[in-house]
Amino acid sequence: MKDLKQGTITSPLGFKTNALWCGLKQKNPDLGLIYSIVEANAAAVFTSNKVKAAHIEIDQANLRNNSAQAVIINSGNANCCTGKKGKQDALKIISGLAKNLDIKEKSVLIASTGVIGKYLPINKIISKIPELVKGLNFNKAEKTAKAIMTTDTYPKQMAVEIKLNGKKVTIAAVAKGAGMICPNMATMLCFVTTDAYIQPKALKQALKEAVDNSFNCISVDGEMSTNDTVAVLANGLAGNTQIKDKSKELKKFSATLKYVCFKLAMMIVEDGEGANKIIQTTIKGAKSKQQAQAAALCVVNSPLVKTMIAGNNPNWGRIPASIGAAGVDFKEEKLEVTLQNKIVYKKSSPVLKDNKVLINLLKKKQVSIDINLNAGKFSHTMWGSDLTAEYVKINTEYN
Amino acid sequence: MKDLKQGTITSPLGFKTNALWCGLKQKNPDLGLIYSIVEANAAAVFTSNKVKAAHIEIDQANLRNNSAQAVIINSGNANCCTGKKGKQDALKIISGLAKNLDIKEKSVLIASTGVIGKYLPINKIISKIPELVKGLNFNKAEKTAKAIMTTDTYPKQMAVEIKLNGKKVTIAAVAKGAGMICPNMATMLCFVTTDAYIQPKALKQALKEAVDNSFNCISVDGEMSTNDTVAVLANGLAGNTQIKDKSKELKKFSATLKYVCFKLAMMIVEDGEGANKIIQTTIKGAKSKQQAQAAALCVVNSPLVKTMIAGNNPNWGRIPASIGAAGVDFKEEKLEVTLQNKIVYKKSSPVLKDNKVLINLLKKKQVSIDINLNAGKFSHTMWGSDLTAEYVKINTEYN
Repeated sequence: MKDLKQGTITSPLGFKTNALWCGLKQKNPDLGLIYSIVEANAAAVFTSNKVKAAHIEIDQANLRNNSAQAVIINSGNANCCTGKKGKQDALKIISGLAKNLDIKEKSVLIASTGVIGKYLPINKIISKIPELVKGLNFNKAEKTAKAIMTTDTYPKQMAVEIKLNGKKVTIAAVAKGAGMICPNMATMLCFVTTDAYIQPKALKQALKEAVDNSFNCISVDGEMSTNDTVAVLANGLAGNTQIKDKSKELKKFSATLKYVCFKLAMMIVEDGEGANKIIQTTIKGAKSKQQAQAAALCVVNSPLVKTMIAGNNPNWGRIPASIGAAGVDFKEEKLEVTLQNKIVYKKSSPVLKDNKVLINLLKKKQVSIDINLNAGKFSHTMWGSDLTAEYVKINTEYN
Repeated sequence: MKDLKQGTITSPLGFKTNALWCGLKQKNPDLGLIYSIVEANAAAVFTSNKVKAAHIEIDQANLRNNSAQAVIINSGNANCCTGKKGKQDALKIISGLAKNLDIKEKSVLIASTGVIGKYLPINKIISKIPELVKGLNFNKAEKTAKAIMTTDTYPKQMAVEIKLNGKKVTIAAVAKGAGMICPNMATMLCFVTTDAYIQPKALKQALKEAVDNSFNCISVDGEMSTNDTVAVLANGLAGNTQIKDKSKELKKFSATLKYVCFKLAMMIVEDGEGANKIIQTTIKGAKSKQQAQAAALCVVNSPLVKTMIAGNNPNWGRIPASIGAAGVDFKEEKLEVTLQNKIVYKKSSPVLKDNKVLINLLKKKQVSIDINLNAGKFSHTMWGSDLTAEYVKINTEYN
């Protein structure tokens, strides 16, 4: 596997992109388009929030035949809690785009991100579609990455290359997300482009596995979005032998897709609203996978743990307090808490008591918390952001 | 029922108190004592966190005979995650206090609050016990209320008077708690004193009901403490006929106790770390009581809802987003969201769209959110704090 320097979603063969400003944000591009020169196999995973953005039902319908050729994305407005009008608006955009691209409406996917509960300024968007399509080319990926940003401080994109049956195959992705980040999934959008030739069923499987091991393992603020979407377009232009279910090629493709999604997920955590640090929390010795996940989520979302890490505050007692409230099975006397590979708590008693040593341990950009419940054999790792006054400032004002 | 102006825990007959500084905090009193001149019937409710402070097991043992005469409380150190030594330390304090008061050790309750994972400076505490006992009197309640504070900005206490069978009965309470506040229960300590004469079984029942309807309905930050304790001492000096199970006197006593606990719970929310506002969240139309509670808790703990309220930010879409992630049953098209008695969202669509009107609605010290799931007949109300940069500051630094 080779990480491509400055790799983008146009690194795989046959993908063009464009972005422009249509007035959803005050300035900066807010409408992006990703286009494959041929129809691609496609799959997507969406938020499990019961309140869903308008685009999700439409995409689910359009993906019934497991293919797509274009994705249009707007930032600045989530088009969520907008009822029938919201869906009609999304369909109008799809219709306009399909006409301009001369493709079927069913080949278009759509996604929105931004404020909830406002109608899209539909005319502004529709009127810009011809310009958006006309400008499609192979070197606008950076602009598109910026167009899907909301509170992100930098665009998130990457591409890697692998060899499959002697053919070069490229997998790339662009993502956005900095707040409202919690599984399942993070509040985020991610679009994967690849020139791999792959069975639709295998593609679906690989995407689900990648998302479960990346975006579903991160939390910035415990909030689950209404708009989360991860979609992949695989246009087959690499010319590899088709990747099939249960093949060793699928294994390799899956591992690579997982790697790309994980890297982007880490960028999202690192760029978490107001975040300065990444907190890696591993639960070991849980009675079940569910309990390991619940415990990891509880710690990674604890405001007291998050502020403790933010402030290099040696108050590690907040960690057992958080675990104790997670509703998982363990005995207090068997609980072990490790901070940056140093045991701080074991056999119901403090182990590392020197505040100066503790403070120095915490003065790192990535802090690891390992918790052994000693109650079973399941484990789970999650990554989260610290909590700073800047997070509060952003979300008090964001509008 | 009569609210006593400047009522305190020494308002009921026969209760003395004292407080002093023994070096647990940098300054200000940090050790308090509540004492009934006669043995009292007693009951308590404790945290359901799996990691519990040392004092809890001891109190549970001492309460087996449903009576107590003294409560000693320290702030500045939670005596939690301190294993055997922590328990031995607590027992030493009890032993020293019992000797000085000339009462049985079993008649003493103990409680701690503060930093987790540090051993108590036991000698400092023990050496101050004679002075603490010597200074017991009827007018130190204010000082005691201050001695149990941690990040609280003001002491929380009150007393009310009722008539039972022609006799004046007084119920009073003191509480602390400002962060790590979430059911079950809030991170808080509360000590209720009353001169009522009441059956132990009836007292237990009344306390449980009062706590369920007060401290278990509030959340400052979604964190459940290791130390939560609500204890009541009823010394019978009012001379009323004994309040018995299922009597109309118990009904009146229970209602009054609930009122006192509710008032103190509201003081805790109002004084929530960094909080400027109280958010009252009511869920209606839930399929079960559990679902109503889960949904209310999810909204009241949502950082995005809390920052929205803090900033008079008209982004009400965060409320349906939060409900959608709560894991409760409802249909999006039946969801109704009301803010300050104005419907903002109904039939999947925004209703109140004027940002200026929305901002003005939010510019209140208490903000009410009403959510109708229209999925059943159960409801639940919770009270929480908004989230400000000050909360983050306090908990980044608190140590």
